[in-house]
Amino acid sequence: MIREAGLEALKKAGLGPGDIDGIFIGHFNGGFLRQDFSASLASLAVPEFRHTPAVRLENACATGSAAIWAALDAIESGRIKRGLVLGFEKMNTLPSHEIGQTLLRCSYVREEGETPGGFAGVFGSIAGEYFERYGDQSDALAMIAAKNHKNGTVNPYVHLRKDFGFEFCRNPSEKNPVVASPLKRSDCSMVSDGAAALVIEPNTSRSLEGPSVRWRSRAQINDFLPLSQRDRTCFEGASRAWKSALKLAELRLEELDFVETHDCFTIAELLEYEAMGLAEQGQGARGVSEGLT
Amino acid sequence: MIREAGLEALKKAGLGPGDIDGIFIGHFNGGFLRQDFSASLASLAVPEFRHTPAVRLENACATGSAAIWAALDAIESGRIKRGLVLGFEKMNTLPSHEIGQTLLRCSYVREEGETPGGFAGVFGSIAGEYFERYGDQSDALAMIAAKNHKNGTVNPYVHLRKDFGFEFCRNPSEKNPVVASPLKRSDCSMVSDGAAALVIEPNTSRSLEGPSVRWRSRAQINDFLPLSQRDRTCFEGASRAWKSALKLAELRLEELDFVETHDCFTIAELLEYEAMGLAEQGQGARGVSEGLT
Repeated sequence: MIREAGLEALKKAGLGPGDIDGIFIGHFNGGFLRQDFSASLASLAVPEFRHTPAVRLENACATGSAAIWAALDAIESGRIKRGLVLGFEKMNTLPSHEIGQTLLRCSYVREEGETPGGFAGVFGSIAGEYFERYGDQSDALAMIAAKNHKNGTVNPYVHLRKDFGFEFCRNPSEKNPVVASPLKRSDCSMVSDGAAALVIEPNTSRSLEGPSVRWRSRAQINDFLPLSQRDRTCFEGASRAWKSALKLAELRLEELDFVETHDCFTIAELLEYEAMGLAEQGQGARGVSEGLT
Repeated sequence: MIREAGLEALKKAGLGPGDIDGIFIGHFNGGFLRQDFSASLASLAVPEFRHTPAVRLENACATGSAAIWAALDAIESGRIKRGLVLGFEKMNTLPSHEIGQTLLRCSYVREEGETPGGFAGVFGSIAGEYFERYGDQSDALAMIAAKNHKNGTVNPYVHLRKDFGFEFCRNPSEKNPVVASPLKRSDCSMVSDGAAALVIEPNTSRSLEGPSVRWRSRAQINDFLPLSQRDRTCFEGASRAWKSALKLAELRLEELDFVETHDCFTIAELLEYEAMGLAEQGQGARGVSEGLT
């Protein structure tokens, strides 16, 4: 899995393992595998990486970003020329009832570690509180789910490549049961095994086989971990990060053509509309109902 | 623990939490705690860090170094001005028979994950192979243990502040039993809870309360994880890293007054003498027997 993603990214960049002088592994694990020290897995997968410095980064749901940041820092500091960023997770090794428990290790375990339903339970209760405050948003959440599944049909790497449609996502059914009220299965991200890889380097004049992107700005903000210490219906950290990143890039939100955001649960995407400034607090549904997203 | 170490490091640097714009957490965990997402613990310990970007790094025994490197990269790239590096581990939450198993998660679990005695067993077998090849080194290992415990008596933060002496370390006894032949308890690092912190910044003109060091060079080399894929009695990765770091610093080993190396087990320290070039392969004992260390 690591090998496949890593070598494909290199191929698309027109490079080989010997062109990489830093490997940045994004890996949560938390008990999904007994194998920790994930950075060491790079040379197990691709023996040519035997002596290449590799390091693991972990920041819960922002683990992939953490690995990308480390690569950007290493390149911008001049320490390395080209970095390979590898993200991978193997979740299906555990019995399914333990998967939720394992993921909860990146919540504040002392208060939230026993939430029934795992993170679906955590986000279900966030959704419940949001509904209480701003009214039932089931239509909006179903629209978000339907939109994302539809987008998935054009992604060759997607786990479930099927356009489920609004009706399926809106109404509980045998195939779409309530997981953690008000969230149904279609509101929740799936348990999956997967790997992804990126090659990062300064501007290149090579012609590339794969798509390339450029970094214009980046911002990271942390917030208190325990939900009890903050307003759960408002992603203050994300809001601050958006403001800061847009300012650094000298752009306004309206100037962006494309946003990819964390949609672990549909309610999270809705709250992120508010965090990025697409809608006022309590008005997140407009993001999807008015066709903005 | 995090709070205490972090605030003390800041105090000695003449700074407060507000002066830090990046936090780099070195944390293995691997199951010692159910709480993952360790980066989030910084603001739990010091609420002023609420919005400061924090990230966790993990590289098995080199976890602390990984966190320091990330801070150096971030500073050298100009992204941050001052970083706080925090390392911590809480090992004593588990029943003692599980501690060895948990640490083995940073070995190659598929081949070494069931080694009796945990990492003591791994290094015991390395020592056994070394003894077979180069003769019994029990005297040298006992001298290393005695030297390190003696050095520990002048370190206020040490776990066990006692000069045990060569005789105690050399001869198995009720208080110093064989843990994984040929290693005795005094050859092995201890299970401990602890935290450490460093403030990293470019040159400063402030007068500092605490000691300060400067970076002259740094090098990282990885090697294959499975011991079966390399010569276990020779730390090739460490050897390459030493050569590279000395070259970058334009120094020879003889010009160094002080070396701090990883002494998880006495046999590891002996092998590192060879890796750093203090002694030829098979001659590591000279490092301590001739009083070089």
